Amino acid sequence: MSEGCNILILTHGNLGEALVETSKMFVSDSNEIYALGLYPSMMAEEFKQKVEMKLEELGSNTIILTDIFGGTPANVAASFLAREDYPIITGVNLGMVIEGLLNNQNTKHELSKIIEDAAHNSIVDLSSKLRNRNNK
Amino acid sequence: MSEGCNILILTHGNLGEALVETSKMFVSDSNEIYALGLYPSMMAEEFKQKVEMKLEELGSNTIILTDIFGGTPANVAASFLAREDYPIITGVNLGMVIEGLLNNQNTKHELSKIIEDAAHNSIVDLSSKLRNRNNK
Repeated sequence: MSEGCNILILTHGNLGEALVETSKMFVSDSNEIYALGLYPSMMAEEFKQKVEMKLEELGSNTIILTDIFGGTPANVAASFLAREDYPIITGVNLGMVIEGLLNNQNTKHELSKIIEDAAHNSIVDLSSKLRNRNNK
Repeated sequence: MSEGCNILILTHGNLGEALVETSKMFVSDSNEIYALGLYPSMMAEEFKQKVEMKLEELGSNTIILTDIFGGTPANVAASFLAREDYPIITGVNLGMVIEGLLNNQNTKHELSKIIEDAAHNSIVDLSSKLRNRNNK
């Protein structure tokens, strides 16, 4: 296992897997990223067991990114906080995943802050930005 | 065509398609959401043509969500701004898509603001939030 932080993405459906796949178009040599999806056919308990097994495999040096606050993937992640101090950030998008992979040699709590900042910076009203620039 | 705003998601790879599919687990009856992916095998010009055809099909009442600022999907979206005043927001995540679908009866510029606010609100440091709550 590498010494870098592992990133585990927990989402509804195949969103996490798509984020992993797409992130490899930018950071192709990373092995420290994983995803588990909660599908409509799956009971929450089954999903929780899969997450538990993955967290045991990855160890404590892991940060968890989830899709939406209040959703089952985020709640399942939170249920493991009593066991280990995993950083958990909701609202995962591609920019967060890429920044996480590029900076995963930081401690998991430093990485959490980097990813949270990257998340906010990744949201840009591009049309307004370009309109304002053209009006200057 | 419905009177609600159309949401077009432009991303690298299959991320946009996964967002559409996953959003249907929350807003199942929406037909106003579409995705196009830029794949490694595809030239930027080919992607641009696909986007142009889709924008012509969807009409002016469309908002564009893209994955990362500075990426080809965002740049391709921006190239159509001279033709039509599409709102374009980068950093797409599941919360933005769901809020967009739930509020797409607003004007496209109102919807743009709603989605941008939803984007920032969707990013929560869940572990710190729970730790602070438990320490109170």
